[in-house]
Amino acid sequence: MRLLLINPNISDSVSDLIGAEARRSASPGTEIEVLTAPFGVAYIETRFEALIGAYAAAQLAAEHHERFDAVIVAAFGDPGLGGLREALPCPVTGLTEAALASACLLGGRFSIVAISQRIKAWYRETVQHYGLESRLASIRALDEPLADIGNVQGNQGEALVALAERCVREDGADVIVLAGAPLAGLARTLAGRLPVPTVDGVSSAVRHAETLVRLRPQRALQGSYAPVPRKPHRGLPAPIVRLLERP
Amino acid sequence: MRLLLINPNISDSVSDLIGAEARRSASPGTEIEVLTAPFGVAYIETRFEALIGAYAAAQLAAEHHERFDAVIVAAFGDPGLGGLREALPCPVTGLTEAALASACLLGGRFSIVAISQRIKAWYRETVQHYGLESRLASIRALDEPLADIGNVQGNQGEALVALAERCVREDGADVIVLAGAPLAGLARTLAGRLPVPTVDGVSSAVRHAETLVRLRPQRALQGSYAPVPRKPHRGLPAPIVRLLERP
Amino acid sequence: MRLLLINPNISDSVSDLIGAEARRSASPGTEIEVLTAPFGVAYIETRFEALIGAYAAAQLAAEHHERFDAVIVAAFGDPGLGGLREALPCPVTGLTEAALASACLLGGRFSIVAISQRIKAWYRETVQHYGLESRLASIRALDEPLADIGNVQGNQGEALVALAERCVREDGADVIVLAGAPLAGLARTLAGRLPVPTVDGVSSAVRHAETLVRLRPQRALQGSYAPVPRKPHRGLPAPIVRLLERP
Amino acid sequence: MRLLLINPNISDSVSDLIGAEARRSASPGTEIEVLTAPFGVAYIETRFEALIGAYAAAQLAAEHHERFDAVIVAAFGDPGLGGLREALPCPVTGLTEAALASACLLGGRFSIVAISQRIKAWYRETVQHYGLESRLASIRALDEPLADIGNVQGNQGEALVALAERCVREDGADVIVLAGAPLAGLARTLAGRLPVPTVDGVSSAVRHAETLVRLRPQRALQGSYAPVPRKPHRGLPAPIVRLLERP
Amino acid sequence: MRLLLINPNISDSVSDLIGAEARRSASPGTEIEVLTAPFGVAYIETRFEALIGAYAAAQLAAEHHERFDAVIVAAFGDPGLGGLREALPCPVTGLTEAALASACLLGGRFSIVAISQRIKAWYRETVQHYGLESRLASIRALDEPLADIGNVQGNQGEALVALAERCVREDGADVIVLAGAPLAGLARTLAGRLPVPTVDGVSSAVRHAETLVRLRPQRALQGSYAPVPRKPHRGLPAPIVRLLERP
Amino acid sequence: MRLLLINPNISDSVSDLIGAEARRSASPGTEIEVLTAPFGVAYIETRFEALIGAYAAAQLAAEHHERFDAVIVAAFGDPGLGGLREALPCPVTGLTEAALASACLLGGRFSIVAISQRIKAWYRETVQHYGLESRLASIRALDEPLADIGNVQGNQGEALVALAERCVREDGADVIVLAGAPLAGLARTLAGRLPVPTVDGVSSAVRHAETLVRLRPQRALQGSYAPVPRKPHRGLPAPIVRLLERP
Repeated sequence: MRLLLINPNISDSVSDLIGAEARRSASPGTEIEVLTAPFGVAYIETRFEALIGAYAAAQLAAEHHERFDAVIVAAFGDPGLGGLREALPCPVTGLTEAALASACLLGGRFSIVAISQRIKAWYRETVQHYGLESRLASIRALDEPLADIGNVQGNQGEALVALAERCVREDGADVIVLAGAPLAGLARTLAGRLPVPTVDGVSSAVRHAETLVRLRPQRALQGSYAPVPRKPHRGLPAPIVRLLERP
Repeated sequence: MRLLLINPNISDSVSDLIGAEARRSASPGTEIEVLTAPFGVAYIETRFEALIGAYAAAQLAAEHHERFDAVIVAAFGDPGLGGLREALPCPVTGLTEAALASACLLGGRFSIVAISQRIKAWYRETVQHYGLESRLASIRALDEPLADIGNVQGNQGEALVALAERCVREDGADVIVLAGAPLAGLARTLAGRLPVPTVDGVSSAVRHAETLVRLRPQRALQGSYAPVPRKPHRGLPAPIVRLLERP
Repeated sequence: MRLLLINPNISDSVSDLIGAEARRSASPGTEIEVLTAPFGVAYIETRFEALIGAYAAAQLAAEHHERFDAVIVAAFGDPGLGGLREALPCPVTGLTEAALASACLLGGRFSIVAISQRIKAWYRETVQHYGLESRLASIRALDEPLADIGNVQGNQGEALVALAERCVREDGADVIVLAGAPLAGLARTLAGRLPVPTVDGVSSAVRHAETLVRLRPQRALQGSYAPVPRKPHRGLPAPIVRLLERP
Repeated sequence: MRLLLINPNISDSVSDLIGAEARRSASPGTEIEVLTAPFGVAYIETRFEALIGAYAAAQLAAEHHERFDAVIVAAFGDPGLGGLREALPCPVTGLTEAALASACLLGGRFSIVAISQRIKAWYRETVQHYGLESRLASIRALDEPLADIGNVQGNQGEALVALAERCVREDGADVIVLAGAPLAGLARTLAGRLPVPTVDGVSSAVRHAETLVRLRPQRALQGSYAPVPRKPHRGLPAPIVRLLERP
Repeated sequence: MRLLLINPNISDSVSDLIGAEARRSASPGTEIEVLTAPFGVAYIETRFEALIGAYAAAQLAAEHHERFDAVIVAAFGDPGLGGLREALPCPVTGLTEAALASACLLGGRFSIVAISQRIKAWYRETVQHYGLESRLASIRALDEPLADIGNVQGNQGEALVALAERCVREDGADVIVLAGAPLAGLARTLAGRLPVPTVDGVSSAVRHAETLVRLRPQRALQGSYAPVPRKPHRGLPAPIVRLLERP
Repeated sequence: MRLLLINPNISDSVSDLIGAEARRSASPGTEIEVLTAPFGVAYIETRFEALIGAYAAAQLAAEHHERFDAVIVAAFGDPGLGGLREALPCPVTGLTEAALASACLLGGRFSIVAISQRIKAWYRETVQHYGLESRLASIRALDEPLADIGNVQGNQGEALVALAERCVREDGADVIVLAGAPLAGLARTLAGRLPVPTVDGVSSAVRHAETLVRLRPQRALQGSYAPVPRKPHRGLPAPIVRLLERP
């Protein structure tokens, strides 16, 4: 099985974190490839950056998906996920969707621990988009500049643990989601440090993508995830045109 | 006052409908300009097409906003609206957001009448995104191919009236939203034909944009609509870079 | 265009604040008239006072509406608004409904800053009535006696700014609604003092009422805002009888 | 124990139905008195009529409550209930609130069977006001003119049974609420005719009012049902002034 | 009238508290019997303990219900209530369901004061099960070991009062629910100590059970509380078999 | 890896279906064992039967869990799941929870196709318990007696396909959940017959349980899924006592 993880941001260091955790999490025989967006920003905190990341992810997915059994949008907030699920013929998931699925299998209410204050509104809207606000205990986040997006785990690890502990003690969280691709693998590193089950987006996405490939559910031929209806288009990159015109 | 309406699709005929209704609706002294997306599809029915339209709208807004007092995303579903509200220094709204604001000022529960079955899921998600699902009575839509996206009003006018009547009689709607830029101006044409107040997205957006400009609310300096935080970026079009780097 | 603002309370000083902000906000050519309730209390904090204010507003509206293009219930909580929308042949809105419509056009989640602790429950119920609780970040209020209801802005201005800042910083508000007719015009005075867009009920109601008049949506002939069905009545003031018996 | 039931409408025939069912339902030793509004309409279907009924109920309650241990607003939709709970020193309930409490003690989801199409929106808003929309299976209503509001049970009894059966079979109702004071006592008459527990507003209100009196819960001294804060007032009827000024 | 209260836990001291408050609350002529679970734990804080308590309650109810007019599950969280309502031919309620019904008749939003931190999640899920989360202001609980489950009231009375006061002042509660059978009767003891109406589960359940018996609503013959459909079974205690096979 | 699937019902034929689909779905190296409840009913349609099944599942899990890496409650409605997640030291999931997780990874809104009308309320409550009602498009069910619970797939296969098609066409479902252990494996059999992705509870539970074992999230030491607090107990089966007293 071959899985494509698309980092919709330009940070190669984050792509490395994603790839490392993906490979640690994958089943024997699963091959992992990570692609980094050729255009965009260092990491997504806002709706505007997500809009850019979604388009970058769509271009990469359109160009490369044919070599893969499933595609993963490897950023929290899942930019472009809904659209790609319509357009691609294979299963697609994203870090937030997959992390929330794991969290819901582990307990009642989850908290999200995030890397910046600004990112909280975008994550809250993502949780609401998935209809899971009644299971969200809280979102807590770091409140300091990120010197190095590829080394948040090293620089702010203790602060993240402290936030997670407050989520459990003060907010009633049964599960912690460590959110943001820059935290990929941290749940594994913190094994034994936290008082409740802790979820990582990358490993969740890899395992759930494998599951979707193995369960081979019927492709959507009707409903709102059926292929995009044919209609006139103009000025689009060739790979996207191929998606729009696939039979 | 100068308002920019961005059609995030490639249909010039729809841009003409948008422009005509916008000019009919604007206050004296308001100038209207409509721009059509240089790339994209004929009209948006899916999340994937919305993703493309959002990026096209962002590019046009980034390039042209400086000449305008407010910007309107002139497609239902409001592709890119949240991001543009963060990135632009002027007020921004969209056809759905504006139409729903009007509908909420006219009655308790509204129904949306739309141009295709496929579009219903995307509209439902848009209403949920705005937190207004408790006020949504129903979404009803045409169920036949659209021969000419620029002439839906002429070809399917009677069918649309029939759908609206069912929304009132069977679903308990107090207000009808005629949804989709291809229906721009139809509420005006149907004056006296429908049994409840009927809302048009373009005229609502024009009037509400004027209001936002006149009320001059404080710009967002904090909160989740403050300007996008500075961070490394790569490969982006110059106008988008200017937005990301505005002081 | 002629707009009637009804202060459902007895405070002439508040009616003066309402009138001043209404005139500052209105479009050229819009005439403003403010009427003060002949019976009732100084300001509404409770459901019981709202019940009285609703009846006072209904009597004033019944008696005077014919000279106006639209009617505004000029108190937060919108006492009587739903009923007047059924009974009057012209558009009707209220300060809360209009302020929330503006807030929803400016950002994702709003907080309400209010003038007394007791008023918070009534405002919360009003927001819930409009189905907007998912967009309500918080309600914060002054916690001291109001020496002069006509001069809350002068006496408690700084305290109100401090509350608004906490709404943004601690509660995640993108927009502030300064609530209560006694705060009419304060958003304008505070221009530049607050970190997010700030909404005023009176100016919002005036502009949105103008919009409703200009858009001329079809009157409700069916649905739950159609005119009140004819039936026996007894002992009602003549203007209310005229409303109940209008064709 | 003495209970006051206030019919906020002018129909003496409905007051007779209310009184008869109240007496059949009361515990030994409970005395029942029913007062009919001196002004208002024959029965409430709309928000505007509810506004009038609320004020009429408030006046009657203010004038007469001192002789009673509890007060019941004896119309569905409970016009004025929230306000009276603040203002009166004794327990207060209403037909809808009480019927919904009974329904929630009898099953999971309830349907409301009502006497007119127009009344449905007002009842839906009442259920939402009580936060019980997730337990509402449906509202179904008669769709024909009511020749005699005092004899709906006789004229439309079979039609009401048919509606109730559809609520169970098609909508998943576990409990039926027969709504509207004109249906007072019908649940008793239909004993054995309906397939699920059936709730009557008057008997529920009488029994629950007795319970509130017997449980003697602490009066509200704080919170949003504490007595109305003292403030200037003008032009109010003497009994309402007494309520506003009670210590 | 004869009421059976089932303590699904093994604490005889708590059964004594339940019985005492039940007798104080019952109407003249109502006979009270309390049965204690023959197996289980001292008090329920978790879903696992509730699962055990539900089965114990079912066995006791199956064996004894025929001598009673109504059955009460006398633990907060109402273990087994939904199932017993299907299986028993008489009315059934539980302490939480009944307390929430009382709370909803006394004010807008209620807080629950509970005896342990661990119990909070289970109570929150119970409130959500009843669809009343929009009326829940908060859950606050003791945070210390319970030396004697039969004497929490004596040992922690002042701490419970302090929690209730915070619910009113900080969380906006209009009503306090003192939760947990070990607190049976405390609302009565605290009369005059708390600033808002305070609800006790046992007295609420006794009074509401009396009401359900007196109102004699139609038994459920259809809907989801109709008797359990006949089907093969095996290995069940004889009283449960009798319930499953009742005509 | 060793997985224990507990059929909380007494139907060996259903256990065979469960085991067969579990083995088809498991990864290489995963061993499957299915245990059938020694007491209970043929299949669960009601809350009362679920209460019995929960206790049976708890006894089996308590007795056998030590030999397994994860436990699956192999009935829809997940009887006992929440409690077992607290009490067992290994991951636990259930057919509904797992199927809903799969459905949420495949599309926006799902419908449940079930085997009896009576079962619908119990399934609806289960979906609400998981907070996913906003993603539930509909529940449709067979409406005829089940001659043989072990052969519903053979006898009613075409009827089930027809129900699924209506869920897509009329209710807007993007995904179908074939619900009930008696339908285990049917999604696989119907491959290519249905127009949207179709989810099976057993295969979902097996794959997700494997994922939970592989991700090795931190065990819950705090929060509401921490082990059950020690307290007095009486009369419980030895395996349950061992769970309650595990360190």
